[in-house]
Amino acid sequence: MIRIIVDMMGGDNGSAATKEAVTNFLKDHDDVEIIAVGNEEEIKDLSCEKIFSTDVSAMDSGVMEVLRKKDSSMVKAIRAVIEKEADAVVSCGSTGAYLSAATLILKKIPGVKRPALVTQFPRLSDGGFITVLDIGASNENTPEEIAQFAYMGSLYNKAVNGVDSPKVALLSNGSEEGKGSPEGKAAFELMSKDPKINFIGNLEGNAVLYGEADVLVSDGFTGNVFLKSSEGAVKGIGKVLKKGFTKNIFTKIGYLFAKGGLKEMKTRMDPKKVGGAMLIGVNAVTVKAHGNSDAFAFYNGIDVAYKLAKAKLIDSIKEGFAGE
Amino acid sequence: MIRIIVDMMGGDNGSAATKEAVTNFLKDHDDVEIIAVGNEEEIKDLSCEKIFSTDVSAMDSGVMEVLRKKDSSMVKAIRAVIEKEADAVVSCGSTGAYLSAATLILKKIPGVKRPALVTQFPRLSDGGFITVLDIGASNENTPEEIAQFAYMGSLYNKAVNGVDSPKVALLSNGSEEGKGSPEGKAAFELMSKDPKINFIGNLEGNAVLYGEADVLVSDGFTGNVFLKSSEGAVKGIGKVLKKGFTKNIFTKIGYLFAKGGLKEMKTRMDPKKVGGAMLIGVNAVTVKAHGNSDAFAFYNGIDVAYKLAKAKLIDSIKEGFAGE
Repeated sequence: MIRIIVDMMGGDNGSAATKEAVTNFLKDHDDVEIIAVGNEEEIKDLSCEKIFSTDVSAMDSGVMEVLRKKDSSMVKAIRAVIEKEADAVVSCGSTGAYLSAATLILKKIPGVKRPALVTQFPRLSDGGFITVLDIGASNENTPEEIAQFAYMGSLYNKAVNGVDSPKVALLSNGSEEGKGSPEGKAAFELMSKDPKINFIGNLEGNAVLYGEADVLVSDGFTGNVFLKSSEGAVKGIGKVLKKGFTKNIFTKIGYLFAKGGLKEMKTRMDPKKVGGAMLIGVNAVTVKAHGNSDAFAFYNGIDVAYKLAKAKLIDSIKEGFAGE
Repeated sequence: MIRIIVDMMGGDNGSAATKEAVTNFLKDHDDVEIIAVGNEEEIKDLSCEKIFSTDVSAMDSGVMEVLRKKDSSMVKAIRAVIEKEADAVVSCGSTGAYLSAATLILKKIPGVKRPALVTQFPRLSDGGFITVLDIGASNENTPEEIAQFAYMGSLYNKAVNGVDSPKVALLSNGSEEGKGSPEGKAAFELMSKDPKINFIGNLEGNAVLYGEADVLVSDGFTGNVFLKSSEGAVKGIGKVLKKGFTKNIFTKIGYLFAKGGLKEMKTRMDPKKVGGAMLIGVNAVTVKAHGNSDAFAFYNGIDVAYKLAKAKLIDSIKEGFAGE
């Protein structure tokens, strides 16, 4: 049985979306127990174990504000991981607050210097996914932390995508060795020498989608810029396309015919399919779903938690870092 | 008369592309003198002033290698800016070598701490362009350098796009104040206080294309990642779309009808339309065209140099930095 704690509150779309997701997820899986945390009035009709909370942390809550609100659904959900001996926790509340609260309450896995936010990005060359971290848990990282991210990302990739010795690339401003920030260059050295990392060198942002890397590693600031820039371009093109297609009667007819192709593109690039990011490096599977998750996206967020828990990712990180 | 030195060699497509571009540019403009630098055999039939060189720096030449080759078209072209009292120089040779040679030979404008690579990016909200710098002249920058980039970028934007008080945003991992790398945060402080910069705050990578900023400023490493990630996403989607459209007879018909819309999208996002990047901060307009420029792209590279020279960008930077 996989036990998942779900924070039902704090998303942009209220508890209606999270409730639909939880109900559907339980319907689809008979090896999952969900413990829902939220406002009694809103979640009492859910047919699973429940923990009631009175406070909701607003999406823009600061870290201290959330931690002070001891009865917030987010803090209660994270604490419930320990109390209920659960495998995973999922929330779509404020990212900064969630990361800090999870690190404080669940604590880092021994040997891990710093947790990272990890997600998957579509790899268009073969329809697979590339594991990307850190996408924003930190603002700056030491070379040692980046090398640890590479190892944690490899374990994540193996657990989720089943790749045996995932190829790790370092996000840089040039593909040659010797390119990159000072921290990046030092991380390059460390990863080259580390037998636990299948390091293949630097990768530029324009080569990620069509590259052969399984894991893209970076400091948290640069990784966040990479992710958001790519997302921005995808969204921008979608809008330009739609505008172009509605220009005249011929392009409108074209749009009707082209819908199939566009839909396939959207499915491939859809962040909702990915389901959210995980804070890797703490003592439980900690999934951060998008703040604007609808029921489908939140379902996928729970699914990420379910798969990572089932793959025993936390155990493999604990083993991997036991000697550090 | 605007005098432009053009390095005819060093691009991926040989001198055929650059010759076609120069010939067409001279045909279209009667206030331009071009001095072409290149191999005698290849460029002797060009009807403009010529300087002959014997060496070509390969695209992947290192800095020292280029500088040692004193008879290379690139070094000769940069030197010719001084000898011929030209306004601008254009090359599509190796970026690193070009930047170093231009900085060494043309020298920094007094007061400028560090030159930056600047380019324009399509702003989809209004069909305009956003000026982005530094996109890769440096691997790391001090807060003072970033603030200077913001000011140089403003002068560039005014010269090229005619915006009177360009809105400057700092590329960051969050829109709130207090987000960003330590250098970014310090640069935020400096720009907030600087009366020469119309600073509007942080901007995330996913908000650039639809933001209201005229200038996006960043350290060279992050700016390069931003640019390449966006380019990569655009290219990736193009490929997915094409694949999707050729899936079956209906999507193929759709593609025929949709071509108009797609073509408009491509035109808007086409890096060839932008023409290349400029090294801003040295004593001449120094344009780096894409290494794989065809005649159309290289024409636009010369056009960037022409417009910046005509707008007297170098004079306004010299004036602006006179007190520094």
